[in-house]
Amino acid sequence: MRKLRYGMVGGGPGSFIGDAHRKAINLDGYAELVAGCFSRSPEKCRQTGDELGIDRDRCYDSYEQMAKCEAQRPDGIDFVVVVTPNVSHYPVCKAFLEAGIHVACDKPLCLSIEQADALCKLADEKQLLFMVTYTYMGHVTAKHIRNYIAQGKLGKIRTIMAEYPQGWLAHEGDDGGKQGQWRCDPTQSGGVNCLGDLGTHVENAVAMMTGLKIKRVLAKMDVVVPGRVLDDNDMVLVEYVGGATGCYWTSQVAIGHDNELRIRIYGEKGSILWSQETCEKVTMIDADGTVTERHRGNGGIDAGAALYGRLPSGHTEGWLEAMGNLYGSFIRCVRAKTDGTFTADMIDYPTVHDGAEGIKFIHACLRSNATGNVWAEVQ
Amino acid sequence: MRKLRYGMVGGGPGSFIGDAHRKAINLDGYAELVAGCFSRSPEKCRQTGDELGIDRDRCYDSYEQMAKCEAQRPDGIDFVVVVTPNVSHYPVCKAFLEAGIHVACDKPLCLSIEQADALCKLADEKQLLFMVTYTYMGHVTAKHIRNYIAQGKLGKIRTIMAEYPQGWLAHEGDDGGKQGQWRCDPTQSGGVNCLGDLGTHVENAVAMMTGLKIKRVLAKMDVVVPGRVLDDNDMVLVEYVGGATGCYWTSQVAIGHDNELRIRIYGEKGSILWSQETCEKVTMIDADGTVTERHRGNGGIDAGAALYGRLPSGHTEGWLEAMGNLYGSFIRCVRAKTDGTFTADMIDYPTVHDGAEGIKFIHACLRSNATGNVWAEVQ
Amino acid sequence: MRKLRYGMVGGGPGSFIGDAHRKAINLDGYAELVAGCFSRSPEKCRQTGDELGIDRDRCYDSYEQMAKCEAQRPDGIDFVVVVTPNVSHYPVCKAFLEAGIHVACDKPLCLSIEQADALCKLADEKQLLFMVTYTYMGHVTAKHIRNYIAQGKLGKIRTIMAEYPQGWLAHEGDDGGKQGQWRCDPTQSGGVNCLGDLGTHVENAVAMMTGLKIKRVLAKMDVVVPGRVLDDNDMVLVEYVGGATGCYWTSQVAIGHDNELRIRIYGEKGSILWSQETCEKVTMIDADGTVTERHRGNGGIDAGAALYGRLPSGHTEGWLEAMGNLYGSFIRCVRAKTDGTFTADMIDYPTVHDGAEGIKFIHACLRSNATGNVWAEVQ
Amino acid sequence: MRKLRYGMVGGGPGSFIGDAHRKAINLDGYAELVAGCFSRSPEKCRQTGDELGIDRDRCYDSYEQMAKCEAQRPDGIDFVVVVTPNVSHYPVCKAFLEAGIHVACDKPLCLSIEQADALCKLADEKQLLFMVTYTYMGHVTAKHIRNYIAQGKLGKIRTIMAEYPQGWLAHEGDDGGKQGQWRCDPTQSGGVNCLGDLGTHVENAVAMMTGLKIKRVLAKMDVVVPGRVLDDNDMVLVEYVGGATGCYWTSQVAIGHDNELRIRIYGEKGSILWSQETCEKVTMIDADGTVTERHRGNGGIDAGAALYGRLPSGHTEGWLEAMGNLYGSFIRCVRAKTDGTFTADMIDYPTVHDGAEGIKFIHACLRSNATGNVWAEVQ
Repeated sequence: MRKLRYGMVGGGPGSFIGDAHRKAINLDGYAELVAGCFSRSPEKCRQTGDELGIDRDRCYDSYEQMAKCEAQRPDGIDFVVVVTPNVSHYPVCKAFLEAGIHVACDKPLCLSIEQADALCKLADEKQLLFMVTYTYMGHVTAKHIRNYIAQGKLGKIRTIMAEYPQGWLAHEGDDGGKQGQWRCDPTQSGGVNCLGDLGTHVENAVAMMTGLKIKRVLAKMDVVVPGRVLDDNDMVLVEYVGGATGCYWTSQVAIGHDNELRIRIYGEKGSILWSQETCEKVTMIDADGTVTERHRGNGGIDAGAALYGRLPSGHTEGWLEAMGNLYGSFIRCVRAKTDGTFTADMIDYPTVHDGAEGIKFIHACLRSNATGNVWAEVQ
Repeated sequence: MRKLRYGMVGGGPGSFIGDAHRKAINLDGYAELVAGCFSRSPEKCRQTGDELGIDRDRCYDSYEQMAKCEAQRPDGIDFVVVVTPNVSHYPVCKAFLEAGIHVACDKPLCLSIEQADALCKLADEKQLLFMVTYTYMGHVTAKHIRNYIAQGKLGKIRTIMAEYPQGWLAHEGDDGGKQGQWRCDPTQSGGVNCLGDLGTHVENAVAMMTGLKIKRVLAKMDVVVPGRVLDDNDMVLVEYVGGATGCYWTSQVAIGHDNELRIRIYGEKGSILWSQETCEKVTMIDADGTVTERHRGNGGIDAGAALYGRLPSGHTEGWLEAMGNLYGSFIRCVRAKTDGTFTADMIDYPTVHDGAEGIKFIHACLRSNATGNVWAEVQ
Repeated sequence: MRKLRYGMVGGGPGSFIGDAHRKAINLDGYAELVAGCFSRSPEKCRQTGDELGIDRDRCYDSYEQMAKCEAQRPDGIDFVVVVTPNVSHYPVCKAFLEAGIHVACDKPLCLSIEQADALCKLADEKQLLFMVTYTYMGHVTAKHIRNYIAQGKLGKIRTIMAEYPQGWLAHEGDDGGKQGQWRCDPTQSGGVNCLGDLGTHVENAVAMMTGLKIKRVLAKMDVVVPGRVLDDNDMVLVEYVGGATGCYWTSQVAIGHDNELRIRIYGEKGSILWSQETCEKVTMIDADGTVTERHRGNGGIDAGAALYGRLPSGHTEGWLEAMGNLYGSFIRCVRAKTDGTFTADMIDYPTVHDGAEGIKFIHACLRSNATGNVWAEVQ
Repeated sequence: MRKLRYGMVGGGPGSFIGDAHRKAINLDGYAELVAGCFSRSPEKCRQTGDELGIDRDRCYDSYEQMAKCEAQRPDGIDFVVVVTPNVSHYPVCKAFLEAGIHVACDKPLCLSIEQADALCKLADEKQLLFMVTYTYMGHVTAKHIRNYIAQGKLGKIRTIMAEYPQGWLAHEGDDGGKQGQWRCDPTQSGGVNCLGDLGTHVENAVAMMTGLKIKRVLAKMDVVVPGRVLDDNDMVLVEYVGGATGCYWTSQVAIGHDNELRIRIYGEKGSILWSQETCEKVTMIDADGTVTERHRGNGGIDAGAALYGRLPSGHTEGWLEAMGNLYGSFIRCVRAKTDGTFTADMIDYPTVHDGAEGIKFIHACLRSNATGNVWAEVQ
């Protein structure tokens, strides 16, 4: 089975997320990095390319050039990975879609609803695959929850408490390094910081686990740390189509929390408690209140979800495996596209349409917040 | 040191809370139950009186009669404990205050803001002690948190996440027995169920731990279980005077939760995490993210709080000890009133004024919810 | 129902355990303290008596006098509580048994196997009730485990890991105050410290939970802190009749542990994990590895055990309730003895025979340790 | 920087451990698999080779042939990874050492003390690098503990409680699949099962974290499940040089445990608690009992250990990262050997000498157990 070839836009010197995507893809070795435009600085781009053993002629000065050249090469890339700051997701993804190349893009998908709609339309028209890498949906336990709920085990869902607190930007002067600087800069992050970075994870996790669609939101987006202009602590009340309710909290100023995406789902027949920091287990409560803890790799985990496990139970898997699982499914689909064996039910990763939901969620929250915390419909 | 004498209104056959108050007072043996109007049914009242060894002539058919007679007896009660359903808190407390008798009343204090103001006024005028038994504020760790924050250890408080989920009324047909029936009955509970029972605990815990005053609330009070008319799942956004924000969640339909009052306080210099179900410990996070767990009975617990401990560390204390601690302070104050040694700084329990805050909180939430979840000022 | 009358030997000024026994008995108010010999110092005895409101003529200078006088009074005590240092358990208990008075004695029962046998014989001959207050066996969850195992739910038990680490005597110079001083003094504690204090709790908990009898032990009893002469860190390998094995660890030098009695029982059909510091829950694992957490007050707890609960689930109970549960059963038995309704199956507390097992366990460990850590039979 | 080339012996169809080693090496992409003798069956060897994209002429029918051929090729492997069943570790490792090729071998190193000594001697004489892959020592938190203790932060170590329970072989008829079959077969596993598989992990973890040398052991190695001939539940008392004591428990029949290697280290100045199933954190207790939890990626983690982290705190790392960290250090050393820049202090992985300690530990335990659980010196 041939290794696929992939290229990367972004992921230059000091980039956490680019390196993380590469390591996650390396895990299984199904695809090989052969091209890149790792930085807007040609020098830095070549530096990273050299470190990664990329041929100099496939280290591109611009993503436009890369899309064009790779599309023409007989050994061109099978897909591109986009890990630039949010502001450039849209033009980069658009360029590669137009060049006929499958895309995996980091979240959030883009800045505006118009961009999101355009990317959906383009991918659909060109019948190209488009993954948005909401990492946490790759966890075996997250997939288990989705399948468990889809089987009706919780009955009608009643309420959802979801949160994603971090503490890394808690202090005045904290700029979070390269990561934090662009996130807190309105021109680079699309006018939203914490809710865009963390809130979209929450929105996506709840949506994919439960299948619920958001009807409207009521958002309170606060700037807590003096000197900052974008939100760093957000609370969102949610109403889903069908009547369930939710409450989301995201924060970058909650000292003591590292990266605590936590989802609690309460239905008429039981509950599910999950936290990505303890992603190897899931707590499931039956209608009679019996509290059962299930572990990846053991019995009681949904069979379709369990397939993604690489190691026996108790041999801890984590973030990279989750990301690797997304790429595993994506790469199988890309290969099937090549083979002509692709069918839509093979998709087991967040798509451009899921990504577009995240952008609509953000904009509804921004509208709610701008108008005094009143309900705003999600279009 | 003579044992004080106390009477009880409510707490008849099948009452959980009356029995719990009696056991909590028994713990230290500082006061003795000598009179009661345990039920509106004279027969049931005498039945309970007999079981508790109360003289027949001090088992009263009505609380009015009890207040009058006990006030006249030379060996009359030093204080009364009011543990009736919410609807009768006001008239009962009023009767005993008017008779010149100190009062301990279960929460919530009463039904309306007018009632709350009247009780505050009456207690103040008569210079009578009035405790509202928000049990959880009796925990050593809760007192530690209050003192720790008062010393400025967290700096300016930024945001507070507080919740109190239960699951005992999750199912259609669940009426929660004697407890649940009156709670879900609008005529007996003042038009509010879950928020009145649990939300006031949350409001009080946050207020007493942080000293923050609520400026306004935005409440979403939902009826989740079909067939119910009062709220059983509530979300409240909070703005405090000074700019801090909060988010409160209370539920009686969250399957898997027993009684999980949980408070998380985030300040500019650190955080505090506390849950009443693990009340023997408190998690404290420093500005640099260092996570320290402190245990009742060990070093690092505020000295004033630590005094309330009865057992060495690791010898678990719980709910009754917390309630006993409230009564310990209240009884010391009652005795000091008798001795003429009372000073206001001896009070270390929630007072009628704290209870009134709870009623104002409920009514602001009811107003917010009734007007489409808009902000409502707390008067 | 008349309150029983009880007396206490020990429990004078500064005594933790005497005060704790009194508070535990107070909880339910089934018995009233009316007499005592609280200290070998008459002055201290009267001081404690006064504080507790005991008549001066029932504050005795010696336990012998107390046993004699109380036995003769028409309103004499129904039972005595013995909470002196270990060295005097035997003579005090003997005196009250000989006077025909039921006894509750703190653990360990006494110093020597001969003493233990004598107390068993005396109690049996006189048909007197004799409780040894291994507190932790009063927990609802501990009783649940015992009943669950008795019903064969774990199948044949294979191995037991049990431990009781504390850290309060970890440092050179730590003398543990009044508590620690006599424990570490060979003349007052019978030549054993840590294993006598903590090891007997472990031995009793395992014995009562599982019903297993110890066949032989292999003990390593170490003195860790310089300057001490008695053991402060002990490891014991155990073989039970029938072939199961066990491993016990007790320590007073394990910094970071408060009072962590923890029992893990592994059978052919499942496992049970329990820790007294989280005594409100028990973890039960089925044959297929399903991990279920049960909470006191909820479904799934053995009905006979659940009866001992005083509060709804999530309203935390602790050490005093456990002790109170032992006294609850003991007092029911004492009352039944008076009424003539007593039958042996009413006993639901550790008896003098259970206490004697503890003494035999200690002495087998001492023999094993003295002979180079070889197996020693428990007689 | 050129990728190193490596070969693998073992790791054919259905092998967990071979696949895991490959994925761990893939993580960073520092080395590439180019040759293998994946199975004793040439057909299965080629099947795995094809799946992994190995040239047919580098899929060898025997390890002897592989060692010889690869040593002669100009593009021969830089190191070999040995992941066969225990019984063949010795001859395979010997063959590659004799061919002048660096070796990474799974634990335990071999079967007999003679073999272990021979491998040590051979590696030393040939100045070849030899890693034994005790995975858990690759964890950032494990390295932190080692460095923390080496800095004297715990003072003199007093006692160590270490355990490694699993439940996968709890039932009669459980053969554990391919893994379990050879482990429980005396001819393939060297006359020891559970203690060889799990006990050596415990021994190594304690040795590497603390630097302590074992003086003597007292082992009880039991066969619990009917029909089995090798140990499946083991308890070992340990005395270290210098007087500290330890207690090790390993089991394959402890239902409810997945893979719970857990180490607790108690010193005169504090304690350390660590479990590999929660490998992202470490609990550290100071002399005064302050309990602090440290997380990989945050402050308070030893700087040398922290370097191994790949992801920000709260982005969970696990077993593969730990294994990858061992290979990271090993590959740096192999490269430095090639470059001539190698120095001994670069080694940050368990060596053949550490592996030999494990074999000596096993044999001392076997002797102790065979002679009635008496102390046996570790040679």
